Amino acid sequence: IVTKLPKVGTTIFTVMSALASEKGAVNLGQGFPDFHCDPALVAAVTQAMQEGLNQYPPMAGVPVLREAIAEKVEKLYGHRYDPVSEITVTAGATQGILTSVLCAVHPGDEVIVIEPVYDCYVPAIELAGGVPVFVQMEVGAQGYSIPWDKVKAAVTPKTRMIMVNTPHNPTGSVMRAADVAALADIVRGTDILILSDEVYEHMVYDGQPHESLARHPELAERSFINSSFGKTYHVTGWKVGYVAAPAALTAEFRKVHQFNVFTVNTPVQYGLAAYMKDPAPYLDLPAFYQHKRDLFRTGLANTRFELLPSQGTYFQCVKYGAISALPEAEFCKWLTSEIGVAAIPVSAFYNTPRESGIVRFCFAKKDETLQLALERLAKL
Amino acid sequence: IVTKLPKVGTTIFTVMSALASEKGAVNLGQGFPDFHCDPALVAAVTQAMQEGLNQYPPMAGVPVLREAIAEKVEKLYGHRYDPVSEITVTAGATQGILTSVLCAVHPGDEVIVIEPVYDCYVPAIELAGGVPVFVQMEVGAQGYSIPWDKVKAAVTPKTRMIMVNTPHNPTGSVMRAADVAALADIVRGTDILILSDEVYEHMVYDGQPHESLARHPELAERSFINSSFGKTYHVTGWKVGYVAAPAALTAEFRKVHQFNVFTVNTPVQYGLAAYMKDPAPYLDLPAFYQHKRDLFRTGLANTRFELLPSQGTYFQCVKYGAISALPEAEFCKWLTSEIGVAAIPVSAFYNTPRESGIVRFCFAKKDETLQLALERLAKL
Ligand SMILES: CSCCC(=O)C(=O)O
Ligand SMILES: CSCCC(=O)C(=O)O
Repeated sequence: IVTKLPKVGTTIFTVMSALASEKGAVNLGQGFPDFHCDPALVAAVTQAMQEGLNQYPPMAGVPVLREAIAEKVEKLYGHRYDPVSEITVTAGATQGILTSVLCAVHPGDEVIVIEPVYDCYVPAIELAGGVPVFVQMEVGAQGYSIPWDKVKAAVTPKTRMIMVNTPHNPTGSVMRAADVAALADIVRGTDILILSDEVYEHMVYDGQPHESLARHPELAERSFINSSFGKTYHVTGWKVGYVAAPAALTAEFRKVHQFNVFTVNTPVQYGLAAYMKDPAPYLDLPAFYQHKRDLFRTGLANTRFELLPSQGTYFQCVKYGAISALPEAEFCKWLTSEIGVAAIPVSAFYNTPRESGIVRFCFAKKDETLQLALERLAKL
Repeated sequence: IVTKLPKVGTTIFTVMSALASEKGAVNLGQGFPDFHCDPALVAAVTQAMQEGLNQYPPMAGVPVLREAIAEKVEKLYGHRYDPVSEITVTAGATQGILTSVLCAVHPGDEVIVIEPVYDCYVPAIELAGGVPVFVQMEVGAQGYSIPWDKVKAAVTPKTRMIMVNTPHNPTGSVMRAADVAALADIVRGTDILILSDEVYEHMVYDGQPHESLARHPELAERSFINSSFGKTYHVTGWKVGYVAAPAALTAEFRKVHQFNVFTVNTPVQYGLAAYMKDPAPYLDLPAFYQHKRDLFRTGLANTRFELLPSQGTYFQCVKYGAISALPEAEFCKWLTSEIGVAAIPVSAFYNTPRESGIVRFCFAKKDETLQLALERLAKL
């Protein structure tokens, strides 16, 4: 059997989580909470199962959940998507991303990808027969930023899609109004589509807004916006998210979706819909995670790590040049094995080998867990 | 946006279910039970959620569930798959099928498909850039059968895969030992892969065995075997199944799987694993569904429908030539609207227009539901 994805091996998240558990390290690698979700959410899903809501839901998702999503997006970002024709519930954001790419990218089409990039983007493009075109973020005193002039220079007549991610994994950077304006300038007058991965939409700090592309009609009209309930409600293992896109894009999305997963777990959908009633639980998230970010950053300030900004997501990137000259992957293995704290090398988010001396920690952890990690890191 | 799937519209299942509910018809169209799953299964999933098993599971599925699957397959079919490297939990069989095809079929590869065919097969091939090559089943006095000589004649040097489905949706036919032997003869000495859709594996009647390809080492070594917990445990809306395949195929399968859905709902996986402990609940299924089949067939014997065999699945096909000269899709609409019983036209399972005067009923329904449908059909 000839492989379709020659470059794909075991994901770095799996590798580091396995090493962390083997070594008894505090796992600040793979991004998932070590605390529980709200018991009310478990109760809502249980109730749906007990009521017998266990058979196929409609292909695009149960209407009450699509309506709840439309209301949330409208309340937060001022854009009303039609739940009937513009919102589709997905089996997690990864499925939403592959499906968005498969339905829109034809063999030979170019897709602009900004590195560092989450690991599912490029295989999705390759499975569609598309060609990834890479632009690298720049790292300066203010942290990571997107060089929009280079994005613009990467556009060709074959450019079918630009993939963006805000808040950004792994860098924790967030697109601001100027970024959105630059993106709008690039695509205006073209038929380039946008895939916007906004799974960390409820984790933007320091009182800043999340610049969802849903806020920007000129961009929303050409965008597949992906989000994730797993991230928002501390249930990464439930594998449920959604894609919001204009009706014409959603129609194409659903053609692939219905022959990919067809539809998504029914009782989870009903449970989420019930849980999303006011007061909406996602409204507390920025403060909840900003507290953890600040706790973690304050502790790290006493180490020889150099902190990059964390404007959003539940990730904190650090430079470790003052501590070690190891390449990133080796440094992470050493940190996990010898210091007892797992991290993810940012080099794993590049398709061409690139060492920046930067690793990523996840702070979606109990305060005690963060404190334990900080004690261990203080040894450095 | 240029469509990737020009031939795809709304599935017949969605269309007929919508019409059935609009008209208040008994819905014997889309295949799903109208009775509840075992409350013990709901309790097992609830317990997993309450224990906090809500974060990412391992990419290939939780080890206890993969072990339970391996044990079941070994007990029933005598072949031991390695749960670590040969079994992957999927977000339903549809996802397993698309992923099997995407990981193995390269642009230009031919895939042999036997019609009538479940609706997700051909779009999967098209999304992979493959070319479907169609062979039609024959309908004789004994019902539907596969003309293996025509399958053999369809093989070319470009044939990459043959897709089979037993028990077969929509026809209710079942592959017997002679079918398996014919398939083995065709692929022997070639590198043709097999996708075997066995989602109705626990619904084979009249004391006959399910000829899982897992029973046949010569075929198992080149097969992606797809199954579905939704069908087996009366929870079609849970969207969980698995793919069993030799390690080399599973490695390729997982490369695509991890960038399609990454993984599958954690508490559902733990709940299923707990529920699959002995006495294994699937062992009662043949008798359970055979009773329903017999009840339904006995009732239909009093109508002018001509019954085809139903050797497996929860489907019953009938010829309606003595009742109406309408094309199948029109007949189903009429039956739903005027008689109050929804059915599925078998023509919907052909890629080239084909009228056989045959429609499919689903008998995965409460006895009362079947009786109500039979009362209405008795009017014909
Ligand atoms: C799907 S496992 C990876 C989780 C995650 O989003 C991350 O750690 O970046
Ligand atoms: C996925 S909806 C169709 C259900 C089914 O398998 C059928 O009715 O054939």
